Amino acid sequence: MEFTYTPLGTASATPSVYRYPSAHVLNIRGRLFLIDCGEACQIRLRRMGISFLKIDHILISHLHGDHLFGLFGLLSSMAMVGRTSLLNLYGPERLRKTLDFFLEEYGEGVKFQIEFHPLGAMQGPQTILSARNLDIQAFPLRHRIPTYGFLFREHEPELNLRKDLVEKYQLGISEMARLKRGDRVIREDGQCLEPEQFTYRPWEPRSFAYCSDTSVFAELPKWIQGVDLLYHEATFADSEVECARTTFHSTARQAAICARTAGVKRLLIGHFSARYPDLSKLLSEARSEFEAVDIATELTTFEVPLKKY
Amino acid sequence: MEFTYTPLGTASATPSVYRYPSAHVLNIRGRLFLIDCGEACQIRLRRMGISFLKIDHILISHLHGDHLFGLFGLLSSMAMVGRTSLLNLYGPERLRKTLDFFLEEYGEGVKFQIEFHPLGAMQGPQTILSARNLDIQAFPLRHRIPTYGFLFREHEPELNLRKDLVEKYQLGISEMARLKRGDRVIREDGQCLEPEQFTYRPWEPRSFAYCSDTSVFAELPKWIQGVDLLYHEATFADSEVECARTTFHSTARQAAICARTAGVKRLLIGHFSARYPDLSKLLSEARSEFEAVDIATELTTFEVPLKKY
Repeated sequence: MEFTYTPLGTASATPSVYRYPSAHVLNIRGRLFLIDCGEACQIRLRRMGISFLKIDHILISHLHGDHLFGLFGLLSSMAMVGRTSLLNLYGPERLRKTLDFFLEEYGEGVKFQIEFHPLGAMQGPQTILSARNLDIQAFPLRHRIPTYGFLFREHEPELNLRKDLVEKYQLGISEMARLKRGDRVIREDGQCLEPEQFTYRPWEPRSFAYCSDTSVFAELPKWIQGVDLLYHEATFADSEVECARTTFHSTARQAAICARTAGVKRLLIGHFSARYPDLSKLLSEARSEFEAVDIATELTTFEVPLKKY
Repeated sequence: MEFTYTPLGTASATPSVYRYPSAHVLNIRGRLFLIDCGEACQIRLRRMGISFLKIDHILISHLHGDHLFGLFGLLSSMAMVGRTSLLNLYGPERLRKTLDFFLEEYGEGVKFQIEFHPLGAMQGPQTILSARNLDIQAFPLRHRIPTYGFLFREHEPELNLRKDLVEKYQLGISEMARLKRGDRVIREDGQCLEPEQFTYRPWEPRSFAYCSDTSVFAELPKWIQGVDLLYHEATFADSEVECARTTFHSTARQAAICARTAGVKRLLIGHFSARYPDLSKLLSEARSEFEAVDIATELTTFEVPLKKY
């Protein structure tokens, strides 16, 4: 039942000595999702011992090179290690041109199918994948080119029956099934069994949101309301707030205000400008707005713990 | 008068935990030449503190991704740090398609000119650049697709006059100039001054050759005869000699035999298969054929010392 997030790269624009270009891995119950694929992503995956073959979904936020120039290398290496299973690629419509170019010029050894899921114009969140246990939504961010954020949310778990009441009321199989479905049971003697009384939610569904690159805007906190873990870009410090505005990026403080407004449980900031070898200023500016914030330290695995009842 | 070689990446095919994809920097008297540009090349350049802006020539050996997938990132970063000066790009003719695609899709910020110098069919060495102090030759290698090796050779230095003889013979300015040019001087009294007697070569021109990727073939040692430093691929150990043959690569032993046959001064081997985390076997197999061989250890600068007289 793992739910972990691992930043592989948190540099903005050009990589620095300290940080790699954008790439992030989400592991939800053993299914791996790669969010953005900056240059050297495959090298970082190897460093973390993450198998290329376990990644079935790659989501590209936008078509700035620092978020996707690792794609050619990763796809080539997937081919070289013998991948045969379908790979799903999500990204702006125009990403298709890059994929087609890659396959035409460098795709000779690619024996697996790549299914491209284009993201078009959208006004708010849209579900782009609904799997057995999980929904993924994309939503528009505010950047210089079409850019998408992503929200991963586990489905509501099935209700569990309270064992003490099953025994006390000597529930039959069909009664238990109906109560678990959330239906009221009326017994022959007229006794009414309410599902709320007999069942409980065994654990809370977990969620993660990814917002990079973007400037701040009013709707965003609503779209990521209450997520357990938020990765939000924090390219600049307060002193560069004007630079953030003109380049459609956020300051660390703006990321923290967004997290506070959205009522998220925990914020991790990243996508730092190379001008900050030391990130303590950005972290303290963010902390002054929202306590539960940390640096998205590269090659560190952050867990969203399962809250059981 | 520096002449140094720095391997940035020596992995073959897929990168490993230990090694990065192919990329190499040659520094000849402060002019930087980048040979191959595998993924993460720009990150390795930063690690070594090498300015992107000082690289005016990039040479791509062939169009396998592990030798050029760092190009998009490097060109983008050159643009972002404000490059304005001309960049020369050498490589197989078909590289033009990749360059054009990059400029069309991701080249918005590229304000500097990129001059592409296509390498076509050739039977032997061809001079591709002749600069003030240096010639660069390309020559065909034997790989699965068109592939080129490169030879860098300093020009012969101007002859120096022997100061003791200048004084002894009371040489005039025009006499000195003629002797330095290599011309004989006949004085009014019939005395004959031979340039060989009055001049000496102040230092030996230095040379470096790059051979990756290639299988062994008879002509290669002739084309790189006597170079001071040779980087030769050594993808496999003896035990995989058949694999080397079918994939058009070399074993470490074959690289060493080539170096010995060519009479090179020093050999560095690289482009290692990821199956060898420990390279000692490859090194010992090479050493059994040619003593002056070492591993091209990444992020290590190897000097070709100036031999003065």
